[in-house]
Amino acid sequence: MAKRIGKRTIIFENSPKIAGYYSVVGKKEGEGPIGDGFHEVCEDELLGFDSFERAESELQRRAVLGALDAAKTKPQNIDCIFAGDLLNQCIGSSFGIGDLEIPFSGLYGACSTMALALINAAVHIDGGAAKEAIAVTSSHFCSAERQYRFPLEYGSQRPQSAQWTVTGSGSAVLTAKRGDIAVHSACIGRICDLGVKDQNNMGAAMAPAAYDTVRAYLEDTETKPDDYDMILTGDLGLVGSSMFCSLFARDGVDITRVHRDCGLLIFDRERQDVHSGGSGCGCSASVLCSNILNRMNGGELKNILFCATGALLSPTSVLQGNSIPSIAHLINLRRQDRI
Amino acid sequence: MAKRIGKRTIIFENSPKIAGYYSVVGKKEGEGPIGDGFHEVCEDELLGFDSFERAESELQRRAVLGALDAAKTKPQNIDCIFAGDLLNQCIGSSFGIGDLEIPFSGLYGACSTMALALINAAVHIDGGAAKEAIAVTSSHFCSAERQYRFPLEYGSQRPQSAQWTVTGSGSAVLTAKRGDIAVHSACIGRICDLGVKDQNNMGAAMAPAAYDTVRAYLEDTETKPDDYDMILTGDLGLVGSSMFCSLFARDGVDITRVHRDCGLLIFDRERQDVHSGGSGCGCSASVLCSNILNRMNGGELKNILFCATGALLSPTSVLQGNSIPSIAHLINLRRQDRI
Repeated sequence: MAKRIGKRTIIFENSPKIAGYYSVVGKKEGEGPIGDGFHEVCEDELLGFDSFERAESELQRRAVLGALDAAKTKPQNIDCIFAGDLLNQCIGSSFGIGDLEIPFSGLYGACSTMALALINAAVHIDGGAAKEAIAVTSSHFCSAERQYRFPLEYGSQRPQSAQWTVTGSGSAVLTAKRGDIAVHSACIGRICDLGVKDQNNMGAAMAPAAYDTVRAYLEDTETKPDDYDMILTGDLGLVGSSMFCSLFARDGVDITRVHRDCGLLIFDRERQDVHSGGSGCGCSASVLCSNILNRMNGGELKNILFCATGALLSPTSVLQGNSIPSIAHLINLRRQDRI
Repeated sequence: MAKRIGKRTIIFENSPKIAGYYSVVGKKEGEGPIGDGFHEVCEDELLGFDSFERAESELQRRAVLGALDAAKTKPQNIDCIFAGDLLNQCIGSSFGIGDLEIPFSGLYGACSTMALALINAAVHIDGGAAKEAIAVTSSHFCSAERQYRFPLEYGSQRPQSAQWTVTGSGSAVLTAKRGDIAVHSACIGRICDLGVKDQNNMGAAMAPAAYDTVRAYLEDTETKPDDYDMILTGDLGLVGSSMFCSLFARDGVDITRVHRDCGLLIFDRERQDVHSGGSGCGCSASVLCSNILNRMNGGELKNILFCATGALLSPTSVLQGNSIPSIAHLINLRRQDRI
């Protein structure tokens, strides 16, 4: 059974464990600062398929199969897969993992989806509704550019506040028993909308949502940033990260020492021309399911907050002049020997 | 705690209850055979807004506020809202319920979303992760036609196998304690894809998914169709319903006596020119949260299976020549005095 503390925090009394994880990314991500940690780097952006959308589906399929292998389990043992992506109607997921015949709970949280998937998987396991579950999400630079911005062939210029969608997928298998890293607790985000309308500055739109969720979790658990080895946001990028830290500074809280952002970790901004940093569902998923979980397994990180951030806009909502509602979901991951 | 029986069925030992529900629909739905049961019928298809998308968001907002009232609770008491819709990036939900400041778990299950939302809400409540939760989804004929088919102004003709997207929303508040109707058990669907490529025959694409889920649930629970007062599918329509019953007939099982379909209940096919019947996330949600739950409250129905069906296609996947993956999620609703 889970229990609730404070206003919004869920404590998992049965502590679901991460039994295995896997990440697969594109060439550019593989050349970045944490490229060595990914399990698989695909040189061909189409992965042998004839569309970017099918290539993105293939990323998810490979991530799930890799995580199943790592967890020494198989599709038949999985009670539910929690998956979603950025593509219209989430076709990255439905065409990627459909043939595995695993009960499927589709999610939509934009770039916050990995945290949302992990939370829902943990709730199902903790409450007995599942014995083994999977979380997975993906993004692909080319499918996202076409859908959200312009066809690649236009060669559009973007402002410095824009981010670069990660080509990648990350997946984790959660179980009731096996694994050294536990999902200790979680906080489900609320939609925040402070009126930002610039789709080339999604970090600014998402920063208040990340602040809202992290602050709620810290209050509910009566902890402070320095109690954690890392507070990892999803894809705020340079602009959003700066705003996120400023919002805490306004409260007299210095979060800069422990704050890191997946969008800043995955690319070298100087060398890789990604403007404000990486973004996309696959950004936080692939960074978590490689560098971060590797460092937790190695003992360097023992207690972290993973707070993935999502901008809930659509090209239609932007064209209609609406602002960008955002959300951030959080989980607390702990190495078991710390508890 | 939940427990699992058979291969895919979840039994909720704490039996989350439906504490309140509400439905809001468009003019055409209000004129249909079950029009009297809806809580609110909107004569203006724009609901006073300047786009069909914002009108759809307003449907969700009204449904949620109505369900909160019916359950005698308020947004601050709700631990999580499970919501989704058919629009790209689920903007029906994010613009509809964002300002309620309720923790938000976005879902994507196409027209199966209402069942998926109820299942996830029930899992969260049963396992202690939430005390009160909401399920909501919507669709709007005009926003769906524009996104999936053609702008209304084209006046496109559609074949007889096509369905008519319902303008409507349904919402239910689930709690741990209050309410006479309990969510007894559930079965999360798997993606089924038998190769149907005709987006004007989604009933045919979805029927195998509904069969797969209902059959799995009946096997796991060792029950037969006649053990239920009704087995209600989401939006198979005339073509899909016939296929669904045929698939059971092939197994020697007659499901026709108890089978009903929300897409056939909501419109009068002869009089309302809807071809194969109603469809859309809002179809099963609004029918469940009006006529069906009213009849359960009245004692006429005591034990039903609600199996909402979704076609996980996108306009892009169709244009790329892919078939239509489908899914169906199921919950068993029981009046408490029956247990």
